[in-house]
Amino acid sequence: MVRSSIPRIPPAAHRLKLPGSFRMRRGGVLEQVEIAYETWGRLNSDASNAVLVLTGLSPSSHAACSTEDPTPGWWEDVIGPGKPIDTERLFVICVNSLGSCFGSTGPASIDPATGAPYRLTFPVLSLEDVAAGAHAVVRSLGIAHLLCVVGPSMGGMSALAYCLQYPCEVNALVNISAAARSLPFSIALRSLQREMIRSDPAWEHGQYSFEAGPICGMRLARKLGMITYRSAKEWKHRFGRERVQDARSESEEEGTLVDGPFGVEFEVESYLEAHARKFIGSFDPNCYLYLSHAMDLFDATDHGGAPSCAIDGGVELRHVLVMGATTDILFPVEQQHELAGMLEGPGREVTMVELPSVQGHDSFLVDMDRFRPAIARFFEGLLAG
Amino acid sequence: MVRSSIPRIPPAAHRLKLPGSFRMRRGGVLEQVEIAYETWGRLNSDASNAVLVLTGLSPSSHAACSTEDPTPGWWEDVIGPGKPIDTERLFVICVNSLGSCFGSTGPASIDPATGAPYRLTFPVLSLEDVAAGAHAVVRSLGIAHLLCVVGPSMGGMSALAYCLQYPCEVNALVNISAAARSLPFSIALRSLQREMIRSDPAWEHGQYSFEAGPICGMRLARKLGMITYRSAKEWKHRFGRERVQDARSESEEEGTLVDGPFGVEFEVESYLEAHARKFIGSFDPNCYLYLSHAMDLFDATDHGGAPSCAIDGGVELRHVLVMGATTDILFPVEQQHELAGMLEGPGREVTMVELPSVQGHDSFLVDMDRFRPAIARFFEGLLAG
Repeated sequence: MVRSSIPRIPPAAHRLKLPGSFRMRRGGVLEQVEIAYETWGRLNSDASNAVLVLTGLSPSSHAACSTEDPTPGWWEDVIGPGKPIDTERLFVICVNSLGSCFGSTGPASIDPATGAPYRLTFPVLSLEDVAAGAHAVVRSLGIAHLLCVVGPSMGGMSALAYCLQYPCEVNALVNISAAARSLPFSIALRSLQREMIRSDPAWEHGQYSFEAGPICGMRLARKLGMITYRSAKEWKHRFGRERVQDARSESEEEGTLVDGPFGVEFEVESYLEAHARKFIGSFDPNCYLYLSHAMDLFDATDHGGAPSCAIDGGVELRHVLVMGATTDILFPVEQQHELAGMLEGPGREVTMVELPSVQGHDSFLVDMDRFRPAIARFFEGLLAG
Repeated sequence: MVRSSIPRIPPAAHRLKLPGSFRMRRGGVLEQVEIAYETWGRLNSDASNAVLVLTGLSPSSHAACSTEDPTPGWWEDVIGPGKPIDTERLFVICVNSLGSCFGSTGPASIDPATGAPYRLTFPVLSLEDVAAGAHAVVRSLGIAHLLCVVGPSMGGMSALAYCLQYPCEVNALVNISAAARSLPFSIALRSLQREMIRSDPAWEHGQYSFEAGPICGMRLARKLGMITYRSAKEWKHRFGRERVQDARSESEEEGTLVDGPFGVEFEVESYLEAHARKFIGSFDPNCYLYLSHAMDLFDATDHGGAPSCAIDGGVELRHVLVMGATTDILFPVEQQHELAGMLEGPGREVTMVELPSVQGHDSFLVDMDRFRPAIARFFEGLLAG
């Protein structure tokens, strides 16, 4: 039986308690905010080798394995000793987004003012708030300037928000499969995912039990997510029109929609079902709504264009790598070209890498033969320079 | 208040009662089958000017206005006097698909054996069955050979099924924004739409009341449909990041998901909501499930390739027009090229027209400046002999 469950905080996560109040960009104030993060490698004596990694919507801070937590992270192939983001030379920080549910304060956290979870009383979340939470972690670690901020997908938007809000504190940006703003096609998809969750009677206007909750809505939303994260081209070769041999035997629970008329029949349906099942118990539905909505709201042009440092002693954004996959339908590669163009400026080197990966938006997680070398080359340049 | 309702049979629809039993391709037999259809123009003396139009998933037989029913049809710009499919010279028949709910027998119809609606006892529907229903209408009108069979979207698959099943009875085929078979990306989307309906508690495993039913599931399914029917490019220019001025005032019903947190905010969300509302009351949910599933099942290669007539006195398929839009994500234009290639053969003229329409899969319904001339030219050629 698939059940919802309280998301697990990664064992290696530190939790920074922020002093004072945290003022949200679109109104509202949070008290006693906590931000969960993990680190890899060692900060050098002048704190000049720090790399901040911001995540997509659903991952935790556990980007890579470590001695404290040997389980593989969500970007295991990219972060680690001798890997493209080389933890033998770099000090890497990965932050769980504010508004998420893996140790950072979010809608599923207890509101200290009431002793009950925030749920829908959580203020409107923006990716600028996510960046501000990450910034607090960076400063708490004694880092005045980041060598680089890295973000794929939603993390790319948060990384851009970071550069725009702290334009004198970032030397380089790696922005992957993201955009300067959400366009109506992706807004429509995310809006529909949110409606799937909100339409589930078990959502109960956000007041669901954490042991149950809108499982059905989360299942639908995750399946739509998976469809938009991959590509038609990949699936054509991967699944074709193959049928599932025996859907019934694959079903863990009787009486579900997997069986019966219009149940799972094609391999692609079985694949979606398996992915949805894995997701349901691991993410809080209200957190999903807030983070998804924050992506729709983001628009870099709210900040008046590219980051620019006007303060003496500040570090100007000098090196930018923008990457994207040609088969991405959620953040089409035109949006990465647009972003690269927007970031062009005097004294700034902007590199746009368009990759012919077939795995769509998710390519940065799986097409390592293409993504790893480009990221490695960029960091080689940074470390040499 | 949005309510489900019993779909309206178009006033101009004739209903052919088929004699005897109707044997379904994938098993099962229907008795007392009815097929609804409309006609325009006059059949000439040698019955050589007949054009059969097969529809996409949701339209009725009302493809164009007529004296009996002056309301505009779903392809009003294409069918009529002096139009690309010219009813002053052609006798045009449009058939409501078997399995649909606008006068043809389908899951919402009464099973004569029980006196109750078929619902999920309706046998598995295939597009070959849809073609067989249309064929019965054509033969009942005294037409031995069709000048042309035309079908967009699902109708293109049904039209192909028609040519494959009756290879000696069709002279020409116009196949628009369709494919020889469904691929996993579109199967995944349709499977998810079906799951949205089936997940709605009000679906009640198909036993819903026809006055209520799975309104919420239908709303979600229609919204996903709209997203896949159009294109990101069109929406970028049409909606941008425009916000709705006052979503609350647009909401007809209080307490819906349109209001409140995560309610309608962007113009694109309001557009989807408006379209979903229009659809809910006009289509039977079980019929939707059957027709959607029939699209997944269709594979022209089940019939061993292109149609070929081996009977004396038969009419061989001689003229084929395959059309598609470059922005179609549901039936990508590569699939139309594949279909055109599959239909190539000795003595057969196959024309592939790829149009740069921005409206995605729906282009054939709206981009009349591009679709009309290409269809008109093809029919001019057919009529010139």
